[in-house]
Amino acid sequence: MSEIVALTFDVFGTVVDWRGSVARGAEALLAPRGHALDWGAFADAWRARYVPSMAKVSRGERPFVVLEELHRENLVEVLAEAKLGGLSDGDIDELNLAWRRLDPWPDVLEGMGRLKRRFILASLSNGNVRLMVEMARRAGLPWDAILGAEVARAYKPQPEAYDAAARILRLQPSECLMVAAHPSDLAAAASRGFRTAYVHRPLERGPGREAPRPTPGTFDYEVDDFIELAAALGA
Amino acid sequence: MSEIVALTFDVFGTVVDWRGSVARGAEALLAPRGHALDWGAFADAWRARYVPSMAKVSRGERPFVVLEELHRENLVEVLAEAKLGGLSDGDIDELNLAWRRLDPWPDVLEGMGRLKRRFILASLSNGNVRLMVEMARRAGLPWDAILGAEVARAYKPQPEAYDAAARILRLQPSECLMVAAHPSDLAAAASRGFRTAYVHRPLERGPGREAPRPTPGTFDYEVDDFIELAAALGA
Repeated sequence: MSEIVALTFDVFGTVVDWRGSVARGAEALLAPRGHALDWGAFADAWRARYVPSMAKVSRGERPFVVLEELHRENLVEVLAEAKLGGLSDGDIDELNLAWRRLDPWPDVLEGMGRLKRRFILASLSNGNVRLMVEMARRAGLPWDAILGAEVARAYKPQPEAYDAAARILRLQPSECLMVAAHPSDLAAAASRGFRTAYVHRPLERGPGREAPRPTPGTFDYEVDDFIELAAALGA
Repeated sequence: MSEIVALTFDVFGTVVDWRGSVARGAEALLAPRGHALDWGAFADAWRARYVPSMAKVSRGERPFVVLEELHRENLVEVLAEAKLGGLSDGDIDELNLAWRRLDPWPDVLEGMGRLKRRFILASLSNGNVRLMVEMARRAGLPWDAILGAEVARAYKPQPEAYDAAARILRLQPSECLMVAAHPSDLAAAASRGFRTAYVHRPLERGPGREAPRPTPGTFDYEVDDFIELAAALGA
């Protein structure tokens, strides 16, 4: 068995709480203008358009565009659907930046700090580089490299998203450990030869909406947070 | 005048002392095997093949390959020229890693620490991502993003190397400040709309081989080190 050299991370949901953070960001911008909404539901509606919008790129129905472009298009649709009018283009741009301001789960900084001493830490997210850079600067995420969809010009779970990360790191896929809270992401990484670590994030979809844990043994590691992952990897 | 948002750095010579570091790395590996050389001259000979080897890619005479591949090919030629035989493939691979182990100039960590508080810091080097990642981990360079030739699939001074960096950062070129010790790199960046900061590195080519300073006013900033650059930028 080859040694693990790099950890590649899913970010939305695995490293950061996108739902709570987007809900807070939307409320901070829109509530002072008199809009009253279920802000968690607003985040959910925005996020619901995420996979379909990337799938259009992956199916070749449109050229590759970075996630912040898709997010903005999706936001315009969600605002229309929610009958949230009266926002300027600048307001919409500002609201779209909520995705650069996502808060990490409470265990993340300590866990990544420990993991970084021993492994290369790379983001392997569908988020684009600038989004990841701003998020990391704000939250203190210690990435060694920002890889993922924009660098690969392919969205997960397309094989090229994973292949490009291993190639750029000059590693065998088996020297890379994909870390994610989503079994579908891990399964796609495993199919490209990556090793896999499942992290359980019961609050990703909001309270009372915990996804079932995968069957034990499905992935190489199954942990409850990044501190447990560091311990499991001897970091 | 637009505000500067990101600093993009040349690395070899500007951030790190490639000549002294490669000389020390080569001596550490080869001297115990009975080889006695002028190690600085060895580093110079290796580096002399750097620009011509990239130029073949830029002229389209061969497909893009990452710098570590070019370095290794060049190393094999330099070893043959120096009649340094008896090295295994593994020895040559190990010697090639000297470029991942370059030491920063003495002002770099303090200067980058200050600059990072205010600006996005991105490498815009011809070195590939893995090389830059390992260098940064060892030296403590606080990059927000590793851009440059591999991400652009084009070597500086090709326009695409600069254009790709600004595009990935989602910035206007005029919001990017190229930081380099080499006037040719800065001139190429300026021709793509970047602002420019020249850093004087009198020891890059070894003692007694100081390059002349550019004519005052050629670049937007002209400084002696990164601490002076931080001060000039109010960071």
